Amino acid sequence: MQRHLGDLLDSKVGGDVTFEVGGELFMAHRYVLAVRSSVFMAELFGSSMKEKLSNRVRIDDMEARVFKILLRFIYMDSLPEDIDADEKTVVAQHLLVAADRYNLQRLKLVCEDMLGTSVDVRTAATTLVLAEQHACQWLKDACFGFLRSPGKLKAVMATEGFQHLKNSCPALLEELLAMVAP
Amino acid sequence: MQRHLGDLLDSKVGGDVTFEVGGELFMAHRYVLAVRSSVFMAELFGSSMKEKLSNRVRIDDMEARVFKILLRFIYMDSLPEDIDADEKTVVAQHLLVAADRYNLQRLKLVCEDMLGTSVDVRTAATTLVLAEQHACQWLKDACFGFLRSPGKLKAVMATEGFQHLKNSCPALLEELLAMVAP
Repeated sequence: MQRHLGDLLDSKVGGDVTFEVGGELFMAHRYVLAVRSSVFMAELFGSSMKEKLSNRVRIDDMEARVFKILLRFIYMDSLPEDIDADEKTVVAQHLLVAADRYNLQRLKLVCEDMLGTSVDVRTAATTLVLAEQHACQWLKDACFGFLRSPGKLKAVMATEGFQHLKNSCPALLEELLAMVAP
Repeated sequence: MQRHLGDLLDSKVGGDVTFEVGGELFMAHRYVLAVRSSVFMAELFGSSMKEKLSNRVRIDDMEARVFKILLRFIYMDSLPEDIDADEKTVVAQHLLVAADRYNLQRLKLVCEDMLGTSVDVRTAATTLVLAEQHACQWLKDACFGFLRSPGKLKAVMATEGFQHLKNSCPALLEELLAMVAP
């Protein structure tokens, strides 16, 4: 079934809506999107949405490569296996945001798992901000667990991501402080 | 000499300026204030200050009891010995602000010493904010030393003063975090 839906996506047969994302076009099927995502349901079939009247939907603030993976997940319920290892975390971070935006709970959990099992000094601050902003308690706990290990928090505090954390979620500073207070 | 200046303050003889602070009036001698404080010098003898033309100076944002101690220190170079023990820290906090405002360096050091040697859970956060805002590095270090002891930071984080710290000096959160990071 998932393979067949994947073929449907690739073939574009019966496609009735085109998304423009980051300068690229993606054709898809309204009903497939709508049955999987309550947000697409509202956007594509809701009574007041302009998307209902148009066959072309533009999505801002998302990269084409991320939307491509999102679409694939909607049709096939799985992630591609060829995501570049170096980019895996960044893609997972963007996908988490996209999954939350389109209310794709399983994709969100898959992203949380990818991020939570690969927290490192370079990515911890940004992942923690995402966990906070998108209410991912498990992922937040995973980041806190990492930061509790000797030396990690100090190293993370020297990253650019931590500057972003400070500015976007100052309340996290207090939580971190409560966690490591002697 | 200091006793005689104290007598001069009490007797009001030759007083040529009256301060109105928190509803109370204090008579003083322009020259005494000016030789001790460059700020009073500028305010009372500067070319453009309205205080120069008036015999009455109103000071806002200061409590009468604090101004009274400030005046006494200007004349006698010492603090009264009858400051209520319960209020000592709060008075010293206010006096530190006043000393900085009138550029009374020795009074500032005396206040720093009073505050730094009596840091406790109740007062640590507010004292730390004052140390930061008035560039008192020694006092800041004293607060940090206190907060480094087991259990202290956690206890201080539960105080109202810490809420004030968070809001007025968020950068201190990061410094505290760097200090206690494992």
